[in-house]
Amino acid sequence: MANKIRVTVWGENVHEKDMPKVAEIYPKGMHGCIADGFKEDPDFDVRIATLDMPEHGLTDDILATTDVMTWWGHAAHNKVDDHIVQKVKTRVLEGMGLIVLHSGHYSKIFRWLMGTTCSLCWREANERERIWLCNPAHPIVAGIEGPYFEIPQEEMYGEPFGIPEPSETILIGHFEGGNVFRSGCIFLRGNGRVFYFQPGHETYPIYHQKEIRLIIRNAAKYVAPRGGVWKDNAPHIPKEQAPDPISKK
Amino acid sequence: MANKIRVTVWGENVHEKDMPKVAEIYPKGMHGCIADGFKEDPDFDVRIATLDMPEHGLTDDILATTDVMTWWGHAAHNKVDDHIVQKVKTRVLEGMGLIVLHSGHYSKIFRWLMGTTCSLCWREANERERIWLCNPAHPIVAGIEGPYFEIPQEEMYGEPFGIPEPSETILIGHFEGGNVFRSGCIFLRGNGRVFYFQPGHETYPIYHQKEIRLIIRNAAKYVAPRGGVWKDNAPHIPKEQAPDPISKK
Amino acid sequence: MANKIRVTVWGENVHEKDMPKVAEIYPKGMHGCIADGFKEDPDFDVRIATLDMPEHGLTDDILATTDVMTWWGHAAHNKVDDHIVQKVKTRVLEGMGLIVLHSGHYSKIFRWLMGTTCSLCWREANERERIWLCNPAHPIVAGIEGPYFEIPQEEMYGEPFGIPEPSETILIGHFEGGNVFRSGCIFLRGNGRVFYFQPGHETYPIYHQKEIRLIIRNAAKYVAPRGGVWKDNAPHIPKEQAPDPISKK
Amino acid sequence: MANKIRVTVWGENVHEKDMPKVAEIYPKGMHGCIADGFKEDPDFDVRIATLDMPEHGLTDDILATTDVMTWWGHAAHNKVDDHIVQKVKTRVLEGMGLIVLHSGHYSKIFRWLMGTTCSLCWREANERERIWLCNPAHPIVAGIEGPYFEIPQEEMYGEPFGIPEPSETILIGHFEGGNVFRSGCIFLRGNGRVFYFQPGHETYPIYHQKEIRLIIRNAAKYVAPRGGVWKDNAPHIPKEQAPDPISKK
Repeated sequence: MANKIRVTVWGENVHEKDMPKVAEIYPKGMHGCIADGFKEDPDFDVRIATLDMPEHGLTDDILATTDVMTWWGHAAHNKVDDHIVQKVKTRVLEGMGLIVLHSGHYSKIFRWLMGTTCSLCWREANERERIWLCNPAHPIVAGIEGPYFEIPQEEMYGEPFGIPEPSETILIGHFEGGNVFRSGCIFLRGNGRVFYFQPGHETYPIYHQKEIRLIIRNAAKYVAPRGGVWKDNAPHIPKEQAPDPISKK
Repeated sequence: MANKIRVTVWGENVHEKDMPKVAEIYPKGMHGCIADGFKEDPDFDVRIATLDMPEHGLTDDILATTDVMTWWGHAAHNKVDDHIVQKVKTRVLEGMGLIVLHSGHYSKIFRWLMGTTCSLCWREANERERIWLCNPAHPIVAGIEGPYFEIPQEEMYGEPFGIPEPSETILIGHFEGGNVFRSGCIFLRGNGRVFYFQPGHETYPIYHQKEIRLIIRNAAKYVAPRGGVWKDNAPHIPKEQAPDPISKK
Repeated sequence: MANKIRVTVWGENVHEKDMPKVAEIYPKGMHGCIADGFKEDPDFDVRIATLDMPEHGLTDDILATTDVMTWWGHAAHNKVDDHIVQKVKTRVLEGMGLIVLHSGHYSKIFRWLMGTTCSLCWREANERERIWLCNPAHPIVAGIEGPYFEIPQEEMYGEPFGIPEPSETILIGHFEGGNVFRSGCIFLRGNGRVFYFQPGHETYPIYHQKEIRLIIRNAAKYVAPRGGVWKDNAPHIPKEQAPDPISKK
Repeated sequence: MANKIRVTVWGENVHEKDMPKVAEIYPKGMHGCIADGFKEDPDFDVRIATLDMPEHGLTDDILATTDVMTWWGHAAHNKVDDHIVQKVKTRVLEGMGLIVLHSGHYSKIFRWLMGTTCSLCWREANERERIWLCNPAHPIVAGIEGPYFEIPQEEMYGEPFGIPEPSETILIGHFEGGNVFRSGCIFLRGNGRVFYFQPGHETYPIYHQKEIRLIIRNAAKYVAPRGGVWKDNAPHIPKEQAPDPISKK
């Protein structure tokens, strides 16, 4: 159907192969599970791309026909080819939506778009995360009841989070061990929208959780392009095409 | 004196050598002229660094003792070593102020900090630029009388300017041929402040102009660090150091 | 149809009665003309409300069933009842979209939402305004061809414009007499979106112009609510309802 | 000394009179204690103004000679005269710094400057607040050691906090009962800077605490005016004063 939102779920697909626990929680891969979350809603058309595919699964054709991309990576950020990252970045600036998940905070694509360290502090200790809503009626939290929801076990990500000030701070997380984090933020870059969403450590079944899937789907609708494609070309405007005359000097 | 603002004026120093006209307007180099502007004010301690110096003049020691850097480049953006750019970027995120001038919009350092194309449209036609003040009492325009000032001849830079929304839009330029441009903008990145300032095509004596020198000095005072140095280290916080106890699961 | 965007066009309806020229250009009132612009697109359901109606046409029922309101006022800002303005403001913060037109920059509703002077400089001299696009692919400028469009005659509004930094600067206008202005800006307030759009002096047929109608319609789609209604109630959370136990002290 | 920062500490001075516990903790009034915090640093010249003084202590002369104002109010927001609030607001937009403390979130001056509800959820239960730093090197947290500091007992203020997105999110608080809050935020309004700082419930000795006094002093230095005074006058620019000629139409 023409009006479906075309999502490409990008997964690093490394821990699924080198950590039995991850393979057990995510038999289809983390990307497979994230894709399943989109399949619960007929508004989406979903595809998968992974690091180990040719061109990391992100061919020009796939990129040109993607409305929203989700990005999960962790162990192999440096194995993602700069040339492909540049193409993804270009598509975001043209208007493609991007959802960066969890350890994707250190992906090339997120760091290149933010311009900052994207650093944080962290701890892996099976902590409950409680995520509070900063705007209870924001489209991204539609369907979440109450002022917060919880993730039973998550890796702690804590402030300071080295991001530019978001355009919208939507979620703030608190971890059992005490730390807080801006767990859901919107950034505008060129003609594109970027949503960073903290949850998703590989050793917990977080992408099976109902609220997480809901927020990712809501976010995809929120960052999906609504305008055109900004094709950047740094145009030279000949003097004769200037709208006003320019005096001789 | 301890409290002087330590400025490093970085210049590409290419057109000064390959274009006689530029050498004539700027016998000490464009960087030399920009540095002279700082020397008019005893609040500054100014040094010069250029592309052709070892490490482009930006050694660790120079970087560590620079409060504010100005950046002019054009023909040789790609000759600036990525490793040096990364070090400059790190210093900005730590707290160093940065003033990006004119064609520096396409420098690695500016594009890396913005995360966007930093593209614009352009025309070289000896046009008058009239620069309007969006906040007549902003520290960056202190000493500018009236609602605007003019540059007799400038290269046209026009919208769309591929930048993220600035933290402060301070100046909007209008060119004789009709185009408009956000000619003076502040961006916050990490613990650093970045000022982009449009004026400064190499074939016009723009950095000799009183208003331009004044605004660059004002901007240096505005982006100079007032806090500490944010040393990013993505710290791992051991479970025992969490402020609150974490239950066994 | 359930999914139409319900627009309420609010008009001051004063100049239509006290200035024959305005009545001639806008025989149905300026609001009538603006409403006609919406009627060109079946996605909208449009109603009119004016100052001279009971409750200025903005009853609780009308407000509760409005997705997007447009606001044009000039001579009678102070005749708009504070109580009604507060209700409109509450609806914006809950999620209703608002498009503030031209001299509406000095309306209570705009000033109350911005928190600033909303001041500008001005001149009434039949000037051509040329409006440049800062993002050529933004949904608000969909259908506008080329880097700018023109209004043959408009009142000049110039910088400094006393607004907080917009969330998105979309349009910059330039006037024949030389001034520039941020003519199209988005602001986020609570759960609502506000678009300020400069064009529309009462003595010119601006709301008949194709590009103006197109941008207003695009903007209405852009600021229309996509999430829920943020019902503010500053809730007291009893100690027993705190998610974590609080120690006795 | 000419270069001292002239601070006016505004206090409601109601609970000091109607609640013995407050009088006991703050024998000089909360304003007196806040003023004492400034007196620890010779960079400040500090004065006190309270609701019960003529013109609430905010005469034109006091306003004109104030660089930074701090504002604490709670029970009597509605007793603050609109006319005085408007004068304070004008001074902020001209360039005066403003620090809004704790329950001042609901003051007229803060709500008028923000344009939003400024609502939050709350609970009075003697909770420990732990305040995390989002930028450990920001001038406002200079001197705070470590990633957070604590207030032993504080009233809970929790998200959603009905503010526009800050220009800088500096502090995020977490309360013993579980809630989180953007406890330190910067907003730019006109030529002025506003810092909202959450701590300061009247029944706890919070303004005696070292870290709180330090942050308030740091913030005063950060929001103190560095430029000129933006005197708003919405100037009419006669046609003859337009920088460019306007054609007859």
